[in-house]
Amino acid sequence: MDRQGSLTALRRAVLEFERAHDVGPDSWCVALSGGADSLALTAVAAALRPTTALIVDHRLQPGSAEVAAEARERALGFGCVDARVVEVTVGTAGGPEAAARTARYAALDDARRGAVVLLAHTLDDQAETVLLGLGRGSGPRSLAGMRAYDAPWGRPLLGIRREATHAACAELGVAPWQDPHNADPRYTRARLRAEVLPLLEEVLGGGVAAALARTAAALREDTDTLDDQAGHLRADIVEDGTLETARLAGLPASIRRRVIRGWLLDGGATGLTDKHIRGVDVLITDWRGQGGVAVSSPLRGQRMFAERRDGELVLRREPV
Amino acid sequence: MDRQGSLTALRRAVLEFERAHDVGPDSWCVALSGGADSLALTAVAAALRPTTALIVDHRLQPGSAEVAAEARERALGFGCVDARVVEVTVGTAGGPEAAARTARYAALDDARRGAVVLLAHTLDDQAETVLLGLGRGSGPRSLAGMRAYDAPWGRPLLGIRREATHAACAELGVAPWQDPHNADPRYTRARLRAEVLPLLEEVLGGGVAAALARTAAALREDTDTLDDQAGHLRADIVEDGTLETARLAGLPASIRRRVIRGWLLDGGATGLTDKHIRGVDVLITDWRGQGGVAVSSPLRGQRMFAERRDGELVLRREPV
Repeated sequence: MDRQGSLTALRRAVLEFERAHDVGPDSWCVALSGGADSLALTAVAAALRPTTALIVDHRLQPGSAEVAAEARERALGFGCVDARVVEVTVGTAGGPEAAARTARYAALDDARRGAVVLLAHTLDDQAETVLLGLGRGSGPRSLAGMRAYDAPWGRPLLGIRREATHAACAELGVAPWQDPHNADPRYTRARLRAEVLPLLEEVLGGGVAAALARTAAALREDTDTLDDQAGHLRADIVEDGTLETARLAGLPASIRRRVIRGWLLDGGATGLTDKHIRGVDVLITDWRGQGGVAVSSPLRGQRMFAERRDGELVLRREPV
Repeated sequence: MDRQGSLTALRRAVLEFERAHDVGPDSWCVALSGGADSLALTAVAAALRPTTALIVDHRLQPGSAEVAAEARERALGFGCVDARVVEVTVGTAGGPEAAARTARYAALDDARRGAVVLLAHTLDDQAETVLLGLGRGSGPRSLAGMRAYDAPWGRPLLGIRREATHAACAELGVAPWQDPHNADPRYTRARLRAEVLPLLEEVLGGGVAAALARTAAALREDTDTLDDQAGHLRADIVEDGTLETARLAGLPASIRRRVIRGWLLDGGATGLTDKHIRGVDVLITDWRGQGGVAVSSPLRGQRMFAERRDGELVLRREPV
């Protein structure tokens, strides 16, 4: 894509996003880091609607306040009606990347004042997310990647290559900030970007990032359909927190396990894994009078067991 | 796993496979290359049922006849009731790996005389298959990997690590043949094995092969359920080769696109891609009086178009 085309392509993607999703009639916010992706998105968004740029200062790197202040100036230069820097304190839970993400989303949610927040995730980010999900092995749901719209979060650039956002910045005449974390090999995502994806591209013959993003979109459709079906069924089958096994036994495994998952989550299960769900499933598909199945991490304050009694599944709680 | 345990684990996996699938009451075949995976499987299978070892000689490497003859001797030594070497001629269609696979499956199908054929694919093979599917980006179906039983092919070792088959061979006191193709960087699968998977394990923190195999199993369940639903619906909706758009419009995208896919395949479409299917889908979801959509590779002898007429989709064929 030539440089002239990149800004146009981004603009088309944001218009298409606006057309496809009900994001309300009025102003929106853009999460701006100062990097190429969010800088280009901010410029495009500000030309379409009254736009507030939200700049999260994670305060993890020296000079982060200056980076934030410069991003703010640029947002106003692009015609944003407002641009606010929000300082956050990043915790440690789940590792540095997860902790920063948690703090960032909480701050954005707090600052958005009811508006949709556009996020600048690109096709390349989506591909990295799919690979991260693969490593977890927690099934189709984690492979399905990020949603284009998951209110209040909108991701209009999921079909755009990262390099196109750099080209758009060149077209705008701005030099984006380079986040040193993006090249820091202590961060899993940075290594996926710098090492794994290029190797996969080489070995599999190119087009891998786009293939991963396409796969994510198709998986999203599949899992949404099955989740819906299981949700309707669960509403029908669960009474007073108990689950009728007779109604479940004849269902396909994909639906049956989703009903079990929803029932356990409704019942307050935490730290739920595929192994928990399959353990409960055996009480339905291979019932031999066995005892309860632990369905909750004992680290999280209570023990929970699923048990079968008179053809019904019930949850039993024990304090730890 | 200690060495003593590996042969037991393999035996348990084959018994579990026998219990879960209807493989008939009598003898079976094992596809034997002489490598660790199939050597260990042959030994375990021969101890359970009258077993015929089928050794395909691809005749691609010098000395392949000797490798095949030695594998045959070992199979008889393990107690196989018969062991036959089948010579094949490998073509070139689809590249060297695909051509060898096509020739191998055709020869095995020819030689099996009605019996089930056990294949020694392991958890590591399944993980590599998922990665290959990711690179194609052809959606959940290609990520779902290999089936444990897809008559006449049985894969009892999909839950067993490759290293356990090596340990089992050590336990049996046999030195497996090392296929030089497994380490040849001209082969995509060899590079996935030697380079990509170790890097993914390192970056994502281990357990990646098992995670990929788990994901494949869950995807298999999901796609089977949706394929079934769409198949029933298609039988209901298609009349004389035409598809009623009104019945499709309200369906979830995952089901709608599967109905379209099945309809196109029934109609003789070849070289079908996701892009073809999405093109036809637009005739349903965004109808503005547009013309026909090409749904077949022009390289394959005929052009085929899907068109909308009076609220119905029809196929039109043109000779090239």
